[in-house]
Amino acid sequence: MRRRPGGRSARVQDAVFEATFQLLGERGYEGLSIACIAERAGVHETSLYRRWKTKEQLILDAVNQRVAQEIPAPDTGVLRSDLVAVLQSLRLFLQSRVGQALFQTAVATLHVPELCALRQEHWQDRCAHLQILFDRAITRGELSPQVDCQFLLEMLSGILYMRFFVVNEPVDEMLPERVVDLILAGVKSS
Amino acid sequence: MRRRPGGRSARVQDAVFEATFQLLGERGYEGLSIACIAERAGVHETSLYRRWKTKEQLILDAVNQRVAQEIPAPDTGVLRSDLVAVLQSLRLFLQSRVGQALFQTAVATLHVPELCALRQEHWQDRCAHLQILFDRAITRGELSPQVDCQFLLEMLSGILYMRFFVVNEPVDEMLPERVVDLILAGVKSS
Repeated sequence: MRRRPGGRSARVQDAVFEATFQLLGERGYEGLSIACIAERAGVHETSLYRRWKTKEQLILDAVNQRVAQEIPAPDTGVLRSDLVAVLQSLRLFLQSRVGQALFQTAVATLHVPELCALRQEHWQDRCAHLQILFDRAITRGELSPQVDCQFLLEMLSGILYMRFFVVNEPVDEMLPERVVDLILAGVKSS
Repeated sequence: MRRRPGGRSARVQDAVFEATFQLLGERGYEGLSIACIAERAGVHETSLYRRWKTKEQLILDAVNQRVAQEIPAPDTGVLRSDLVAVLQSLRLFLQSRVGQALFQTAVATLHVPELCALRQEHWQDRCAHLQILFDRAITRGELSPQVDCQFLLEMLSGILYMRFFVVNEPVDEMLPERVVDLILAGVKSS
C-alpha cells in the first residue's frame, strides 16, 4: 500500500477514504471501525492495519488528503483574489456531503480526547499550507510582515461555518468577496 | 403555567428548561421527548402539552430564554465596548455545558426540516435584539447608517465557533477585543 499516484495502491487508498467518509456520514464516529471500512472498500482488514494503527489515524489521513484536494492554495498574483478563491473552495466543500459529514463528526466528537490533538494537528497543517499566500503578499508589499495569518484565516472562515451550521442560511457566491474586502480593509487600516 | 417571574410557574419553567438542556446533552435531540422532560423535571406531562405543542417548540423557547439571559444587549455608551461585551458573553456561553450541548444539537440536526425554520427564527430574533447596539452607534455618529448589522454580527461571532468547534483551541479573554478592533477598522475604512 505504498502511495503511487494513479497506480493500484492509489485506487485502493481512494476507495478506503471514500468508504470512511460514507460510513462517517451514515453511522458517525462511534459506529466506525477499521473492520467496517475494509468491508465497505472491499479490501482486507489486515492491509488497512498495516498502514494505519487506529481508525483515528485513518480518519486524519483521509481528511487531510480530501481537504488539501478540495481547498488548494491558489496563486493568482494578488492576495485578495487568492483569499476569495480559498473561501469559494471552502464554501463548496462545506456544502458538500463529505464536508458536512466531517464537520458533524468534528462537533459530535468534541470531547473525544484522541481526536482533539489530531484536530489541532490538521488545523496547524492547513495554516502552514496556506501561509504561502500571505508570504507572497508580504514579499509583494501588499501586507505588513507583522500580520497573524492564523488569526486572519480564522476571521475569514468563521462566517462560513456560522452561516452553514448556526444560522442555517444559504451562503451565496458573493459572500467570499464581501468577507475578504472587510478583513483586508481592517488589516490595512489597523 | 402562565409566566410570573419569581412565582411557582417561573420555577416550574426553569426546571423544565434545565431538564431539556440536561437531556439534550445526555441523549441528543433524537432521544428527547416531552414525556422524558416531564419526568426529569418532576411535572405532569399534560401540563407541558398545555403550553408546548411539540418538543421543537419547547426547545426553541428554552434556547431563546437561555441565550437572551446569557448574552444580553449591553449599553456601555460606545459601540466598541458594547461589542466586546457581547463577544465575552458568547465566549463564556460557548464554553459552558449548555452552550456546547446546544451547538452539538444544532449541528447534529442540520437536516431535520422542523428545526431549520426554528433555527432561522432564533437567529433573526437575536439579530433584532442586538440591532439596538448598532442603532445607538448610528445615532451617536459612530457608524454609517448603511452597515449590514447581521453581516457584522456573523463576522464578529464566526471566529469563536471556529476556535471552539473546528480548531479546538482555547479562546482567550483577549480575543474579543482583537476581533472587534479588526472588524470596526474594516467597517470604518471600507
